[in-house]
Amino acid sequence: MNTFGITFRLTTFGESHGPAVGAVIDGCPAGVAFDKEILRQDLARRRPGQAHTTTRKEPDEPEVLSGIFEGVTTGTPIAVLVRNRDQRSQDYDALKDLYRPSHADYTYQQKYGLRDHRGGGRSSARETLARVIGGSIAGMMLNEQTDILVKAAVTRMGEIETEHPLAHMDSEQIYASPMRCDDPDAERRMSAYLENLREAGDSTGGVVSVRAENVPVGLGEPIYGKLYATLASAMMSINGAAGFEIGTGFAVVERRGSENNDEWIEENGVLKTVTNNSGGVQGGISNGMPIEFRVAFKPPSSIAEKQMHGTTSGEVVDHSITGRHDPSIVIRAVPVVEAMTLLVLADMWLQTKRW
Amino acid sequence: MNTFGITFRLTTFGESHGPAVGAVIDGCPAGVAFDKEILRQDLARRRPGQAHTTTRKEPDEPEVLSGIFEGVTTGTPIAVLVRNRDQRSQDYDALKDLYRPSHADYTYQQKYGLRDHRGGGRSSARETLARVIGGSIAGMMLNEQTDILVKAAVTRMGEIETEHPLAHMDSEQIYASPMRCDDPDAERRMSAYLENLREAGDSTGGVVSVRAENVPVGLGEPIYGKLYATLASAMMSINGAAGFEIGTGFAVVERRGSENNDEWIEENGVLKTVTNNSGGVQGGISNGMPIEFRVAFKPPSSIAEKQMHGTTSGEVVDHSITGRHDPSIVIRAVPVVEAMTLLVLADMWLQTKRW
Amino acid sequence: MNTFGITFRLTTFGESHGPAVGAVIDGCPAGVAFDKEILRQDLARRRPGQAHTTTRKEPDEPEVLSGIFEGVTTGTPIAVLVRNRDQRSQDYDALKDLYRPSHADYTYQQKYGLRDHRGGGRSSARETLARVIGGSIAGMMLNEQTDILVKAAVTRMGEIETEHPLAHMDSEQIYASPMRCDDPDAERRMSAYLENLREAGDSTGGVVSVRAENVPVGLGEPIYGKLYATLASAMMSINGAAGFEIGTGFAVVERRGSENNDEWIEENGVLKTVTNNSGGVQGGISNGMPIEFRVAFKPPSSIAEKQMHGTTSGEVVDHSITGRHDPSIVIRAVPVVEAMTLLVLADMWLQTKRW
Amino acid sequence: MNTFGITFRLTTFGESHGPAVGAVIDGCPAGVAFDKEILRQDLARRRPGQAHTTTRKEPDEPEVLSGIFEGVTTGTPIAVLVRNRDQRSQDYDALKDLYRPSHADYTYQQKYGLRDHRGGGRSSARETLARVIGGSIAGMMLNEQTDILVKAAVTRMGEIETEHPLAHMDSEQIYASPMRCDDPDAERRMSAYLENLREAGDSTGGVVSVRAENVPVGLGEPIYGKLYATLASAMMSINGAAGFEIGTGFAVVERRGSENNDEWIEENGVLKTVTNNSGGVQGGISNGMPIEFRVAFKPPSSIAEKQMHGTTSGEVVDHSITGRHDPSIVIRAVPVVEAMTLLVLADMWLQTKRW
Repeated sequence: MNTFGITFRLTTFGESHGPAVGAVIDGCPAGVAFDKEILRQDLARRRPGQAHTTTRKEPDEPEVLSGIFEGVTTGTPIAVLVRNRDQRSQDYDALKDLYRPSHADYTYQQKYGLRDHRGGGRSSARETLARVIGGSIAGMMLNEQTDILVKAAVTRMGEIETEHPLAHMDSEQIYASPMRCDDPDAERRMSAYLENLREAGDSTGGVVSVRAENVPVGLGEPIYGKLYATLASAMMSINGAAGFEIGTGFAVVERRGSENNDEWIEENGVLKTVTNNSGGVQGGISNGMPIEFRVAFKPPSSIAEKQMHGTTSGEVVDHSITGRHDPSIVIRAVPVVEAMTLLVLADMWLQTKRW
Repeated sequence: MNTFGITFRLTTFGESHGPAVGAVIDGCPAGVAFDKEILRQDLARRRPGQAHTTTRKEPDEPEVLSGIFEGVTTGTPIAVLVRNRDQRSQDYDALKDLYRPSHADYTYQQKYGLRDHRGGGRSSARETLARVIGGSIAGMMLNEQTDILVKAAVTRMGEIETEHPLAHMDSEQIYASPMRCDDPDAERRMSAYLENLREAGDSTGGVVSVRAENVPVGLGEPIYGKLYATLASAMMSINGAAGFEIGTGFAVVERRGSENNDEWIEENGVLKTVTNNSGGVQGGISNGMPIEFRVAFKPPSSIAEKQMHGTTSGEVVDHSITGRHDPSIVIRAVPVVEAMTLLVLADMWLQTKRW
Repeated sequence: MNTFGITFRLTTFGESHGPAVGAVIDGCPAGVAFDKEILRQDLARRRPGQAHTTTRKEPDEPEVLSGIFEGVTTGTPIAVLVRNRDQRSQDYDALKDLYRPSHADYTYQQKYGLRDHRGGGRSSARETLARVIGGSIAGMMLNEQTDILVKAAVTRMGEIETEHPLAHMDSEQIYASPMRCDDPDAERRMSAYLENLREAGDSTGGVVSVRAENVPVGLGEPIYGKLYATLASAMMSINGAAGFEIGTGFAVVERRGSENNDEWIEENGVLKTVTNNSGGVQGGISNGMPIEFRVAFKPPSSIAEKQMHGTTSGEVVDHSITGRHDPSIVIRAVPVVEAMTLLVLADMWLQTKRW
Repeated sequence: MNTFGITFRLTTFGESHGPAVGAVIDGCPAGVAFDKEILRQDLARRRPGQAHTTTRKEPDEPEVLSGIFEGVTTGTPIAVLVRNRDQRSQDYDALKDLYRPSHADYTYQQKYGLRDHRGGGRSSARETLARVIGGSIAGMMLNEQTDILVKAAVTRMGEIETEHPLAHMDSEQIYASPMRCDDPDAERRMSAYLENLREAGDSTGGVVSVRAENVPVGLGEPIYGKLYATLASAMMSINGAAGFEIGTGFAVVERRGSENNDEWIEENGVLKTVTNNSGGVQGGISNGMPIEFRVAFKPPSSIAEKQMHGTTSGEVVDHSITGRHDPSIVIRAVPVVEAMTLLVLADMWLQTKRW
């Protein structure tokens, strides 16, 4: 299942160390202005080689193969390709017969009977590049047809948490921050925290928070296509995701109904809720308030420490993974979370048009 | 979108106060023994009218309309109907022009331009009855073809939490408990906690925990059909769900990779992981360890306290909801969570057969 | 696969001799006036017990279980049920271990390992009743939102063919004709033709022709969701269909491009084609001209003559099928063809709204 | 809708004069040996530049971007790209504001508000190249897992028809014939017939016939996924298709049941039918007999003769289409029909595995 979405559909392909990764977007309306610079910028925001992310450097130059004519979308599938240039496959020879702890090596091998072991093959985070392509085009479409604004940021990195309100965030500021966090104080502490982990050869978990503003009322399809069900599926499909919560989220467990209910007020003739504990979605359908959710990401599994690996011959061996590793997923997850949010909203937006 | 699943598909229909709710299961293999007593028991486990749940009493007798012949499934769609008998629609007349706080009233009205206001209409938890039908039949199929065992229980009710290990649970015991919790001490405290809330006319959130044992290696479809992505979608589609986490879940944010990684051991020729922080799924595919996840449910929105309601004419009014209300969703959510888990596993099991 | 359609979806269930057949329509817009009398009439038009169709008499009274509130659709799934009342299952006991020639007995048995042999079970034409329910509601929706008019008639019955132009047809007249043919001369000859066949215990093939008028330009989704591809799939899914052709159809094989091309003219500021050899669809998308296609149906397989049947034990026996049989499918196929056309157009209409 | 199939899914992209056309195959089982030479040969069989097809010459060299590792499929999506090298876009400048008769120019423009007019853009037959890629890989899979053998040939070209039994065909012979017809006498007459048409600047319709042998019993999904319904959809999605018929097909209209029924015989312990008027499919499910169907293709719309074209400004003008044109579609349609047949059978084969 390499396709995401119902009406605005993203199909992705490509392995970490194969010739290329790519995306086919089907169902994008015709006439949307396509801006390759925005696509390049979105890919750059995801690109490794920055502080605290892996040192693999690739230009990630997108090539548009179809679906754009004279600068606009034509309603036909938009295929975009990015070549894999930095393929040091031999780095992974040692892993050919090993199952790394908490990686997908064992499960792919068991499911398919074989696997492309180089850099995780299809299970590599490099696949998320294709999601960013999809999200970028979804964003161009939403930008023309709606006022929707999606912002994502790191709000938790190990022990470091920021209480900086998401409402004050600005995407420019967030991406200017190497921590993808616009609270300068938290950013400094996160940075130091990561530096220590990097030296220790260890890694940490974290949280990416999202706020989608100006989402029209009515997006989301009951019963099984609820907006938060689809968002949950989108987020939990990202490598390393361990949890999803919307609005009050897990903190809801200690809340009373009298605290957690969102009472109504009228503002300039429009009904709004005083609080937004529902996270902008009620009964699975957007209610016009900002959509707010959080995604927990586990610490990257590739660490310097020796750990027991499985082997294809059914034994276990003590092994230390060498090579390029991030002490954190969340920094690079921010644009991916943002892309998946845009894809969900684009899909729901188009689905809603028929009502 | 009233259909769930790809290969084993559940389509549901019905409103709270319409003539009936029902389910159509398409894609169930032929030759599965159909046991109506199991279906009756599964529906009884979900039925309201028990301690701490609403007092609406309905027998919920299922009528099988198709797909079963001489006691076994035939491979054709299985349609099952349950009549709505206790329809005190007039109870809801007062709500015709009101939008209750944190209910789906406003969003349905805005999306569709009208709504069946009686008891929440389609957004009522009564729809979950049809999910239990689907889950029951999924369970019959899995029971014949696999050793999969799914257990769900309340592990958190407001301030009360149980540390009782899920591994020790037994479905019989859980359903014998009015709190759907097999830790007798926690159960007592939950019960008292709920009694207080009921007297106060208030409600509380909670957590349902799930453990699926003996799940074969290889279930789950990368990239967008990952097992936890599909489980997340299934769980977040249940009324009142606010969060989903698998394995370590949100606690992962403070974990280091060296703590959180699941190292491999070999046991009787089979590779297993020492810990199960991944919750039985790696790279979106089951790894043979128990699948463990949790779902947070918000406090029921219907409380006795006066709250600001919206109105269809765009104003707000102070209003108190009368009628039958639960102080907690989680008790009744247990069999629904279990049903959705069975549906996901049945679907993934059948999808995996083609590989 | 018991669901048809992408946006306007029909799911059907039910066996010939089970308790009921039914339909769930998902994706119908909210606010469409639901007229039960139209549904009754549409079901009556399909009903057996009329001249030249089987003598099985059932009222086929529809029961609406969901999706309608205060006379209009609510956007939630519409479930409609029709009970099977006249279940002389014992009529079919003789067929339990037999595979009738050109029936689905053998293939169902082989695919599923078992089958409901009573009256063909799920493969019975009684399933088409559920299609008529879906088509009826699709028609109510299209009637409100478009000027689309779908007409179907028998234009060929064995040796008898009518050249009566479809453009002159009127649904009332067609359904007033026991042959579903508005050419009185052809009707008379068809009637006599069938009478002879009935006496001989034999059956004949035929053709149903369709003309959909006032179809807006732009319906149909390239590449694999072309309007005629979807119509072909819809028609070939009807019991007994043997061929589908659009516009010139198979007669195209002897045509030259210079004869077959539809040249353009301008009429009152609107572009039209002089001829309509394309049958109203170009490149898979409706061009505003009437959509015209034909479906060939084979002679019913149940005939009085003794024929070699297979048996479940792998032998063959000479056997004569007793019971109620039609000498022709096409008469009863007319409302089914019409219903499937309406379903396709409703689906395409809603899909097109997003562009 | 640029995706075909449910379990074995083909997604295609690309315009006639864009940078490339390509295919993404999702759902192909892992471990299938991938033979690039077979893919090259299948593409060569479709390639123009041969006698009686357009003179546009392109090597159509496929580049595999993903899904293959060490010579076998990995279960991940297989992306294959073919560059468009011979892009004489200026040839089409004259057509920018014209709607050619019986082309998709007008309908694309109306549906999307704009179109890539160069060479028909997405509606060009060049898209069928991506289908051949999909069919080629479907064939490799079926070849490993089944004995299925699919053969297609031209059996009708305008007035010329061959009665050569499909059973005697051999794919090698057919593709060795420039007419894709293994009846040498018919081939000679077709060739002369086409030569005359080419000189006259005109075109002709024709028929491609298919015979799929050794298809296992049980492929096809009732009710709406019947094998012939899916085949019909696949065939009618090919550019220029005007009709589809299976088994007896339209000739069924004059047949009596007593003539058309396929009686059973037992052969070496296996049940077979004496005749194969059902074309190998009964009740939508394959019965083990050869699957036999035919597809009618219209005469190519691009002819030398002056014809009335529409214009984007709503007028009509007399115009003669210059450039490279085929007098017949059927020759080039043969490998496309074959590819779509393989795709349908691969999909049905995998779907059937779950039963």
